[in-house]
Amino acid sequence: MKIDGQPYRTIFPEPGGEAVLVIDQTRLPFAFEIRRLATVEEAAEAIRTMVVRGAPLIGVTAAYGLALGLRQDPSDTGLERAVAMLAATRPTAVNLRWALDRLSASLRPLPPDARAGHAFAEAGRVAEEDVANCQAIGEHGAQLIARAAAAKGGRVNVLTHCNAGWLATVDWGTALAPIYVAHDAGIPVHVYVDETRPRNQGAALTAFELNAHGVPHTVIADNAGGHLMQHGAVDLCIVGSDRTTSTGDVCNKIGTYLKALAAHDNGVPFYAALPVSTIDWTLTDGVAQIPIEERDAREVTHLTGRTDEGGFATVAVVSPGSPVANPAFDVTPARLVTGLITERGVGAASAEGLLTLYPERRAAA
Amino acid sequence: MKIDGQPYRTIFPEPGGEAVLVIDQTRLPFAFEIRRLATVEEAAEAIRTMVVRGAPLIGVTAAYGLALGLRQDPSDTGLERAVAMLAATRPTAVNLRWALDRLSASLRPLPPDARAGHAFAEAGRVAEEDVANCQAIGEHGAQLIARAAAAKGGRVNVLTHCNAGWLATVDWGTALAPIYVAHDAGIPVHVYVDETRPRNQGAALTAFELNAHGVPHTVIADNAGGHLMQHGAVDLCIVGSDRTTSTGDVCNKIGTYLKALAAHDNGVPFYAALPVSTIDWTLTDGVAQIPIEERDAREVTHLTGRTDEGGFATVAVVSPGSPVANPAFDVTPARLVTGLITERGVGAASAEGLLTLYPERRAAA
Repeated sequence: MKIDGQPYRTIFPEPGGEAVLVIDQTRLPFAFEIRRLATVEEAAEAIRTMVVRGAPLIGVTAAYGLALGLRQDPSDTGLERAVAMLAATRPTAVNLRWALDRLSASLRPLPPDARAGHAFAEAGRVAEEDVANCQAIGEHGAQLIARAAAAKGGRVNVLTHCNAGWLATVDWGTALAPIYVAHDAGIPVHVYVDETRPRNQGAALTAFELNAHGVPHTVIADNAGGHLMQHGAVDLCIVGSDRTTSTGDVCNKIGTYLKALAAHDNGVPFYAALPVSTIDWTLTDGVAQIPIEERDAREVTHLTGRTDEGGFATVAVVSPGSPVANPAFDVTPARLVTGLITERGVGAASAEGLLTLYPERRAAA
Repeated sequence: MKIDGQPYRTIFPEPGGEAVLVIDQTRLPFAFEIRRLATVEEAAEAIRTMVVRGAPLIGVTAAYGLALGLRQDPSDTGLERAVAMLAATRPTAVNLRWALDRLSASLRPLPPDARAGHAFAEAGRVAEEDVANCQAIGEHGAQLIARAAAAKGGRVNVLTHCNAGWLATVDWGTALAPIYVAHDAGIPVHVYVDETRPRNQGAALTAFELNAHGVPHTVIADNAGGHLMQHGAVDLCIVGSDRTTSTGDVCNKIGTYLKALAAHDNGVPFYAALPVSTIDWTLTDGVAQIPIEERDAREVTHLTGRTDEGGFATVAVVSPGSPVANPAFDVTPARLVTGLITERGVGAASAEGLLTLYPERRAAA
């Protein structure tokens, strides 16, 4: 997508191939800076500190990180060390493991001196597939928005949580891809953007993306969505997913579950948009089985933003001395999810729905 | 309640009676400052800018504000002008109107030169009644916590939203009163405190209160409560109410409805604690009938807090140029409310439940 008219991806190899370049998402929306990752340590640190974030982008960054690690040490030990380091960065997103498993399975049989080159090429393929998948998600999901606009005879209000836009992927996004496709096709769409505490990815990243692309939107506190739904202000919810069970449970940014409950209570369709890499076919019960990452208390107690003078400041907003808990994700049970928007189309949030979209999985199921 | 061992109320007449003194709640938790209100304009401004906030405290402040206004101008015109000015400060809380109606009804028949003195005395009675009501709410609600502790054989985890503590009233609080009574009685209780965006009354005020009183607690993002309830970490929810319909719908701080949905979905009892002054006997449908105050976008876009250097800074956290909506309250339908904790006891959130607690209302109903 474009920033100031310039097309960008969130991650791309440096010309010459010595490193990969990423948009530093901890600096948005107030500064647009490119960071250079030249080692597996730097890639792992970028994932851990959320310089890059979003389930699909984490997977692609891990793939490139593994390639960087193999340039440093292409031995079996080096391979396993790089995989372990990258896998430890974020425990919830399944794309990370998916990308690492995919690359390491194809790399292990290779002689060490062939590994780095193969890994870079494969990381590039993972990135291209992500772009293609997101674009397909956009095409399928836009039909839901088009139908809602036709049924309503007017502007469709979509509520989204966190950032599952192009900044969370390589390009296009997952939850926002249908919105971009619909908007570009002239379908009137407006987005309610949950600010998404504690890291404010909605207020900082989703609002930035939508503003840059010219999509009408309104930022709201996470607390406000239920009230809006009670009053008919939301036609459709679309969120992303960090891990989806084989039964359609959706693990996504903390607070997603609360919005799904409100959508259900008010008859508002609630969709999760996700590429196949987000599906964890081994799981059948998201609440019981998915480990939820507990992040630093300082994400809740402190906020960094721009001062009126144009500088940056970090301020404490929690009463000093009070303990804090900071679970980063929650699980929305499939019973609250109207459907899953994937690169294969829109299906029911159920084992049967997913197997209909991915029939090649029937043998494994 | 106590701060640094010193007993305080949130509002009290200045010795000599020329003004009223209030704790400036916009400065908490980082600074404890007393503000002097000497005119009706200052009282109205204090309510409007949330130097004082919380439904019961707003009512008491309005009562004192009217007394201050009558000292300035005790004529019929002065009385009506003061009532209108105070009533316009916050559209949602019913206590404000309740206190103004109560005082003005008793003041209008009086000769102008008797009005100010009568108003000060009556405001004092409103304050004393609020303290007594909150203490009774605490006694009744503590029994719920005691029963939960006995049933569980251990510490009771209570989730609360916003600040309905003693800072929201004259003393004791509404939602927190049962917690203080239970804690003081040696019942093991721990509180999950929603930070309560956008104004962070949970993180700033509830955490401050509980810390000052020594009640174990954990601050969480508003998004986290559903996840905690899914995992059995919450035994009981207790919130306040800014306006309660005659049918038991609870209008409270934005986001309350989302927590009630999660409580309902997970079988967690959900109570609202409120004095009789919060009940609007004229209403039967909270979602349809209660006007929801829309507050300044800057409450969402900017945060003020303490820097690591000990100063204060205000920072922008929303992408520049993005529009913002900021509804301040939502309505939790009675079907999601397990019970109402009032000064008369705990009753069902229904017309019959309220009439059982307040049988004198049956004639009017």
